Amino acid sequence: MSDHSDAPVAPIEAFEPPYYVAVFSTIRTQEQDGYRETNARMEELVKAVPGFLGMDHAQTPGGLGITVGYFRDADALTQWRTNEEHRAAQRRGRAEWYERYTLHIAKVERSHGYTRE
Amino acid sequence: MSDHSDAPVAPIEAFEPPYYVAVFSTIRTQEQDGYRETNARMEELVKAVPGFLGMDHAQTPGGLGITVGYFRDADALTQWRTNEEHRAAQRRGRAEWYERYTLHIAKVERSHGYTRE
Repeated sequence: MSDHSDAPVAPIEAFEPPYYVAVFSTIRTQEQDGYRETNARMEELVKAVPGFLGMDHAQTPGGLGITVGYFRDADALTQWRTNEEHRAAQRRGRAEWYERYTLHIAKVERSHGYTRE
Repeated sequence: MSDHSDAPVAPIEAFEPPYYVAVFSTIRTQEQDGYRETNARMEELVKAVPGFLGMDHAQTPGGLGITVGYFRDADALTQWRTNEEHRAAQRRGRAEWYERYTLHIAKVERSHGYTRE
């Protein structure tokens, strides 16, 4: 999964557990040619995965970016992980765009949302 | 858990699963009196919880903030969730600082890190 830059201004809702989160935290390099286009394409692709529920993204200017993808089940994640175009983007990401990243795949046991009245 | 503002510039490492993540995504209000001080105090408190592993934070200016806390096990999370000073901060957060938030508690099954050579 890649960061994305046109995130909505509200967090994704709390879905009914169980579901999966993919937490992707990144520091990017100075070399960002092609990043934006690839990122937009990855968003398009992940939205087409059956069981994809949505994503949240936050980006500290010059600092850490965190993208959290939400998936209904492990099968949806497997489909996304093994997508060939996604894998090619990951390879390019390691070669050019990312200084460092960490990915955590986790099964949600409990969730909670709050919206001000 | 609260956002924090002095996050390190690299993401937390990938720990050996299983461990827990608490993903806290927020939109804040215009009313931020006392937020920074409380946030600093919450960071101090959570670091004292046995089994707390670390946290990542990213903040889009004027947009979404995402804090991800990492915990060794469910007991560590329970200890943090039931901390009285933390609960008081949560109540104040809902009353003053947060327009909207979502919290997802999830057990990590797989993780992976990359650092550029």
